[in-house]
Amino acid sequence: MSMNGAESLVHTLLAAGVDTCFANPGTSEMHFVAALDRVPGMRCVLGLFEGVVTGAADGYARVAGKPAATLLHCGPGLANGLANLHNGRRANTMVVNCVGDQATYHRPLDAPLTADTEGFARGVSGWVRTATHAETVGADAAVAVQAARTSPGQVATLILPSDTCWNAGGVPAAALPVPPPPTTSPHAVKEAARLLRGGEKVMLLLGNEALRADTLALAHAIAAATGADLLAQGSNRLIARGRGRHPIERVPYPVDQAVARLAAVRHLILIGAPKPVIFFAYPGKPGTPVPASADVHVMTRPEHDQHAALAALAAELGAAPVAPPVHARAEPARGAISSEAFATSLAALLPEQAIIVDESVTFGRSFFPLTHAAAPHDWMSLTGGAIGGGLPMATGAGVAAGGRRVVSLEADGSAMYTIQSLWTQARENLDVTTIVFSNRKYAILLHELANVGANPGRTALDMLDLGSPDLDFVKMAAGMGVEGARAGTMEQFNDLFAQSVTRKGPFVIELMT
Amino acid sequence: MSMNGAESLVHTLLAAGVDTCFANPGTSEMHFVAALDRVPGMRCVLGLFEGVVTGAADGYARVAGKPAATLLHCGPGLANGLANLHNGRRANTMVVNCVGDQATYHRPLDAPLTADTEGFARGVSGWVRTATHAETVGADAAVAVQAARTSPGQVATLILPSDTCWNAGGVPAAALPVPPPPTTSPHAVKEAARLLRGGEKVMLLLGNEALRADTLALAHAIAAATGADLLAQGSNRLIARGRGRHPIERVPYPVDQAVARLAAVRHLILIGAPKPVIFFAYPGKPGTPVPASADVHVMTRPEHDQHAALAALAAELGAAPVAPPVHARAEPARGAISSEAFATSLAALLPEQAIIVDESVTFGRSFFPLTHAAAPHDWMSLTGGAIGGGLPMATGAGVAAGGRRVVSLEADGSAMYTIQSLWTQARENLDVTTIVFSNRKYAILLHELANVGANPGRTALDMLDLGSPDLDFVKMAAGMGVEGARAGTMEQFNDLFAQSVTRKGPFVIELMT
Repeated sequence: MSMNGAESLVHTLLAAGVDTCFANPGTSEMHFVAALDRVPGMRCVLGLFEGVVTGAADGYARVAGKPAATLLHCGPGLANGLANLHNGRRANTMVVNCVGDQATYHRPLDAPLTADTEGFARGVSGWVRTATHAETVGADAAVAVQAARTSPGQVATLILPSDTCWNAGGVPAAALPVPPPPTTSPHAVKEAARLLRGGEKVMLLLGNEALRADTLALAHAIAAATGADLLAQGSNRLIARGRGRHPIERVPYPVDQAVARLAAVRHLILIGAPKPVIFFAYPGKPGTPVPASADVHVMTRPEHDQHAALAALAAELGAAPVAPPVHARAEPARGAISSEAFATSLAALLPEQAIIVDESVTFGRSFFPLTHAAAPHDWMSLTGGAIGGGLPMATGAGVAAGGRRVVSLEADGSAMYTIQSLWTQARENLDVTTIVFSNRKYAILLHELANVGANPGRTALDMLDLGSPDLDFVKMAAGMGVEGARAGTMEQFNDLFAQSVTRKGPFVIELMT
Repeated sequence: MSMNGAESLVHTLLAAGVDTCFANPGTSEMHFVAALDRVPGMRCVLGLFEGVVTGAADGYARVAGKPAATLLHCGPGLANGLANLHNGRRANTMVVNCVGDQATYHRPLDAPLTADTEGFARGVSGWVRTATHAETVGADAAVAVQAARTSPGQVATLILPSDTCWNAGGVPAAALPVPPPPTTSPHAVKEAARLLRGGEKVMLLLGNEALRADTLALAHAIAAATGADLLAQGSNRLIARGRGRHPIERVPYPVDQAVARLAAVRHLILIGAPKPVIFFAYPGKPGTPVPASADVHVMTRPEHDQHAALAALAAELGAAPVAPPVHARAEPARGAISSEAFATSLAALLPEQAIIVDESVTFGRSFFPLTHAAAPHDWMSLTGGAIGGGLPMATGAGVAAGGRRVVSLEADGSAMYTIQSLWTQARENLDVTTIVFSNRKYAILLHELANVGANPGRTALDMLDLGSPDLDFVKMAAGMGVEGARAGTMEQFNDLFAQSVTRKGPFVIELMT
């Protein structure tokens, strides 16, 4: 069998279980595109902007538990996708990030689209390789998938000069073994047990896979047995939540609240989470919410098997399972729109096994505590702070959802970064309900500006104002083939939301906050 | 007078003549935003996505002849702007690219938005510096402006950790002298004259400032005196064109046409242009349109004074001025829409001193030759091949236009990359008429795919199809506060276009091709 490099690439990806490709191809990727015809089995999802492609790959992997491939066009196409790869990096997301590029022998001529593709890739990737020959593209792809899937997951960027795709001699490679997550040392578990028995104030800080339902149950058993405090990282790739599951709070975003939340901690035990840090520095404020008097202990790093480690810790402590709290089912809120009213309605109306993608920024600060009583669901956050991740993640989650409803909670300013996502949702008829919180300003920045100086003037305020002209998300959605409507009261929202989750396909609700 | 670093930055920019700032700020830039209130004189233009900001800075500088500042938020914010900075780099555009970032002492904590900002900047910038202290931010900014303005112009990236902006001790710096463009060696001019007198086939290839009206006139005088052929680079930052000016063709984009156009050349003399290269490699095709038998000579590099060099060459040759050709004024086309009909109408209806921003891609291949008879205008192209440059460039050009009408020629696929530009056009009430060529496909890629393999299948074709669902640019524009309408015939287009150029503010015409 004779095949070119591109065909060997597609065969190799499929053999390694990568069967979904989010793509925004260009001329240098045409042989890859042609190969997708000749090698059946890859679901190709087109994005009209690379930020959609990379954010969708992030959302897909968080839900599917395996990587998608991307297909991007040269250095500048990769550049357009970097911000959401940055978010993916902070979530330890698995992505097989394929970037077509100039032919190996054409690069020295410095054609207009030639750029430092590897240089752009390095800052967001745990693994980067530029293919050199058609004969080895299959092997390169197999290593890329292995790298992407190695715990805790990472962005693996494979740069494919066009001649490595069109030349003959491609050899499909078998999937390489993915090492299981390593087990943390028994000593680290025993040390954590010793601290938990020691009578001083201990907090377990959970991140990454420690936030799955069964692992959270173990953490709650340990907390019940020892009096330890539990907290999750501020932003997480996925938290299992809702009725029948154990709730967990997160490190608050505002610096003063974060400091207050951790003030009493004497021992902070990290379980799959890095030491928490404040998002930005502020004059005269600390850079971390961890008190200087606290000791920080690493029980597991993000790549470790979190469930095994917590099971060992629970066993060491003889901690018995505890039942999750029982919440009364909420009724939808009525009347005026507020953050709390919205969260109440969301908790009441959320369908079973929904996937929430949260880029609600300021308006959403109350959503998390008020939605634990919702039906069981997964909660995905913007992990890297690069706004514009939400709509793409929801799109990718919708591709992976398999009948589950995706609920995309979007601030208006953030929604505008990657609004093109809606077109892909329409094209793929994805079950995504997007709620845009339309406050017509960069509310988070108005707050920050107020912190900075007294009496901001017109020039400064204008820079944070999204009115003048007002954005109309219903019209924009219609322009991309997605139905939508505005809600000016909670009753209107309740009706629109309830309808949207029972029908196929995407819907946009512009909530006038 | 006590001021902080951010205030010294604004003072320094203003003192150096940089009085326009395209911005998409975040938390780490709030002190810069606050300083804009306290230091009057800077026009601030908000973009809802960083690609709008950087592309607008590119378009602004091409028209204004001086740099704008940008204001971007951390590494990922810069990343979102990289593709249009790449285009700017290929145009040798002047940009003072300001990127706020984590405080110097906060960076080691690796907060979520922390990224390799310098690493991202390097690939698109001729000059990169990270400020270290408030006291030296003014001096840093003065050097940044000087770097940006040094011929032929470049992207100068100044990264501003937030503490260098909020700390006291800022010292405004005086503008540094900008060196004039260097003069090429007299030997290079004499050598060009010798070749032009030698009787062999000579082509002058012009780029950068050699394409201004008075310099083009000198090139035409030389061509008339010697029989030399004239050609411009394929993509150029600005060509002065229209009635009363000398026309010039460009190196064609398709490889076969480019090779044919240069086939007879024995001596290629580069005047402000690099040696031409084919955009992408294709199996079995050359990487450059310059025949192997041709000798390539550099008379001037892009940074040289092109006008002085061509004046010296004309003097050396005794070449007398020649009048530009006289074209009959065209009548608008009627009936069915085609590339030629559109170009005919555009030539007939274009207002005096319009600025054309051309990202028309495939549909626009006939525009350039058919519009020389239009009223005098400037023609700006996408220089780096990273699509999504057009709408932002038109936005920035509109800010710099001073009463001139900007006409933005946009392919539908490219328009979707940075569609957020329309909101800024509405907010600033810019005189920009956007024509979106709505063919509902990536037409250029369909052509490339056809070159690659016979009978593309459904999977491949779907990746290049922008229908399903159809995009509606009139609705999207309305969602961002810009009026628009569809044209299904040339008569409809003629009416809409003629109206749009006589009224204030932006307008979108979706041309159904």
